Amino acid sequence: MDSSILQHPNIQRTKDKVRLTAARLVDHHINLAVTGLSGSGKTAFITSLVNQLLEANEDANLPFFSVVREGRLVGVKRDVQPNLSFRRFAYEDAMLSLSKAEPEWPLSTKGISQVRLKIKYKKSSGVSKYLSKDATLTLDITDYPGEWLLDLPLLDMSYEQWVEQCQSELAEPVRAELAKPFLSALAALKPMEVADELILKNIAELYAEYLHACQKRGLQLLQPGRFILPGELAGAPALHFFPLLPIYDSDLSFDSKKVAKGSQADLIINRFEHYKLKVVQPFFREHFKKFDRQVILVDCLNALNNGYYCYQDLQKAIDWLLGSFQYGSSSILNRLFQPKIDRLVFAASKADHVTPDQQGNLVKLLESMLRSARKNIQFNGVKTESTAVASIKTSRTGLGELEGDNIQVLQGQNNLGKTITLFPGEVPQACPPASFWDAQNFEFPNFMPPLLGGSHSLPHIRVDQVLEFLLADKLK
Amino acid sequence: MDSSILQHPNIQRTKDKVRLTAARLVDHHINLAVTGLSGSGKTAFITSLVNQLLEANEDANLPFFSVVREGRLVGVKRDVQPNLSFRRFAYEDAMLSLSKAEPEWPLSTKGISQVRLKIKYKKSSGVSKYLSKDATLTLDITDYPGEWLLDLPLLDMSYEQWVEQCQSELAEPVRAELAKPFLSALAALKPMEVADELILKNIAELYAEYLHACQKRGLQLLQPGRFILPGELAGAPALHFFPLLPIYDSDLSFDSKKVAKGSQADLIINRFEHYKLKVVQPFFREHFKKFDRQVILVDCLNALNNGYYCYQDLQKAIDWLLGSFQYGSSSILNRLFQPKIDRLVFAASKADHVTPDQQGNLVKLLESMLRSARKNIQFNGVKTESTAVASIKTSRTGLGELEGDNIQVLQGQNNLGKTITLFPGEVPQACPPASFWDAQNFEFPNFMPPLLGGSHSLPHIRVDQVLEFLLADKLK
Repeated sequence: MDSSILQHPNIQRTKDKVRLTAARLVDHHINLAVTGLSGSGKTAFITSLVNQLLEANEDANLPFFSVVREGRLVGVKRDVQPNLSFRRFAYEDAMLSLSKAEPEWPLSTKGISQVRLKIKYKKSSGVSKYLSKDATLTLDITDYPGEWLLDLPLLDMSYEQWVEQCQSELAEPVRAELAKPFLSALAALKPMEVADELILKNIAELYAEYLHACQKRGLQLLQPGRFILPGELAGAPALHFFPLLPIYDSDLSFDSKKVAKGSQADLIINRFEHYKLKVVQPFFREHFKKFDRQVILVDCLNALNNGYYCYQDLQKAIDWLLGSFQYGSSSILNRLFQPKIDRLVFAASKADHVTPDQQGNLVKLLESMLRSARKNIQFNGVKTESTAVASIKTSRTGLGELEGDNIQVLQGQNNLGKTITLFPGEVPQACPPASFWDAQNFEFPNFMPPLLGGSHSLPHIRVDQVLEFLLADKLK
Repeated sequence: MDSSILQHPNIQRTKDKVRLTAARLVDHHINLAVTGLSGSGKTAFITSLVNQLLEANEDANLPFFSVVREGRLVGVKRDVQPNLSFRRFAYEDAMLSLSKAEPEWPLSTKGISQVRLKIKYKKSSGVSKYLSKDATLTLDITDYPGEWLLDLPLLDMSYEQWVEQCQSELAEPVRAELAKPFLSALAALKPMEVADELILKNIAELYAEYLHACQKRGLQLLQPGRFILPGELAGAPALHFFPLLPIYDSDLSFDSKKVAKGSQADLIINRFEHYKLKVVQPFFREHFKKFDRQVILVDCLNALNNGYYCYQDLQKAIDWLLGSFQYGSSSILNRLFQPKIDRLVFAASKADHVTPDQQGNLVKLLESMLRSARKNIQFNGVKTESTAVASIKTSRTGLGELEGDNIQVLQGQNNLGKTITLFPGEVPQACPPASFWDAQNFEFPNFMPPLLGGSHSLPHIRVDQVLEFLLADKLK
């Protein structure tokens, strides 16, 4: 036999593949992505996830995490992260802030960051159960901004469609008010004139200011996402575009196929396309499609606090997201990136900001927001879970009296270090009608993190159940 | 004849090429790169370059710029920049700062930025001279940090060679003093132990702090350059490496081929290689090789102000640069990127900070620093020029008396808005011996920008000569 055949590159490649597959069977690996809409507590969530795993065999409280309950967890440690260009997730800094005598919330992360954990465990069944060697699960947690996920639907839109979308958003009086400086600058633009970069830059900056103002008001449907978090693109023409809304000047209504080359409108449309192709797509092509599992955090309470319009906006943001996120055969995700995500968790964060008897309602509220899109996701074989968590539990529960009845109340520290006791209100099980909002005033508090004292593990609500859903099948 | 042959892809490609070449003959194009060592006044230089061109036919003073002198310049305007991901060079903001009633220096640029100018002119000779149509030169100016250029020689170094280089730098007492916190952390490291990312991160941060401290002291040879300007790599493991200097602990001396996989040393070496391949190389491969002409600004006066050691350090930084920058057949640049740079300007900046009679010396001083390497550059067909410029002239010259003799003195505004008159000292024509520095105290001032009054053009020294050298051959 001619031994040179064995060296043939194709054969070599096949052998490499077989070896890789074999290695994967022995060394399990989960690529978990965590993101959340603005202010949803992503940093606290990842800090807690890492903390519960690292402290699982110490004083962490994880009754619903089977590998711990069954005494099969050998140990967990942080390991060298695979992607050298992603920021290292600052777990240690976060724990330092939380462990202070006057605990502080960790600084929120910017852009993308990563942490790898090695989870050593004993097999529960099969031949390997009887082998003395422990198995290892490698868990990579990648943290990326929810704003980037909100950009995904843009990939499936023409510039005209995007303008239409922006126009329908601006029909809302709250947004129209915040957009005034942008809109009046836009009204003075002549889109058919020869392009002037400086004019476009100035109007684009006003558009970015409008998005920042929306964010401050608690609105969630903010895109293009890089306008909020520009990173290295700050000041670059890649972000100097905006919607040419037709309502303020009939000149602004145009057919994109008839736009003269080198005109303002031409530059704007080119930049929109460049943004899709060179800014949005690379993240999904290079990173997103490698994720196995995804957590999306949502702050429903903040939306309730801010009133009907913010609540509606959160609903729109979720619709906007799920429209492309449905993993159906026709979705953008599948057509462009074929991600392999098989489990998806939607978590309403800050569950410790309502009394325990309201937490069920909080989950129902989130579920009512997800309902229509969730069906599609399940249909396509992606397991989903909706839950309410407190990554770091900040409150204790007590009993109080309201109009003669005993009711549950919350006790926590406010930002002046004072202990406050309150009844934050009832959480509706679904979106109440507009009229309801005028009468009811939700008032969910903002608590400071709890004093850890000697403990190294973070108190939480239901983080163990999330761990079970995300990891248990790979720890068997 | 079979017309389908004409549609053959190869023929089509050739036709495209011919068309492209023809277009290039008509529409000239120059891709000019500007960089400078730290504090050399890059932003002021580019602002002035753009300003002189935009105002060339108004009140700019450009006697040495032939196309203006010969009355052939039709007009210059800013045009849409070609690279959408580079920051737009903030010319307008810079002019706003300079045009204030109390003028301020423009903020220095971070990372890479760009500006495109279209220069319309009349041909001076040839057939086209008699054609009524004006010719156009497109000038792209790309501004990038000198720190990135200092990283270039790393590409040709193994990790051991880099450590040796760092070791020789640290032999200097000034640097050794600043490196103390880094060195004592390094001494505690066990490079053969299993890697711990957090330890490496902490030591790498001390190394970055050492580089920042060097920069504050006026030192120039600072690399890895991304440690000074990390951009989106801030906090990423790609920057978590450092030199394992062998002098402090014999454990730190090792053979890189015998380093155990997964050890601290292994991670460090991998990251050094990753830095070369994924951080340094892309800039040169994607951008640098497209540059036609290069300006390198050097602040010789600051080095003289800071004393012998800083002067020597500047000399070393220039050697370090030119060693790979010589465009010889064996240089890194040629082997890896084949840049097409054919003209190179070394400019000593801030020539207005010495009296006119000393400006000749300033050029001679710069030339003495460049001498050995320059020969190689000229030998390889790259035209080089050394000059001294003031991008924005801040001083006036008068006559004063020193010990009975009339001498030239400078008058300018200090940062309190007061007019000061002084004799800044004589500039040596070459590096004086070490002993000389103890006796002589150079004291070159820091002036504020001049009051522009009604004028739109910036006063300067020799920017017109630089323009002539860089552009004149393409404006004929």
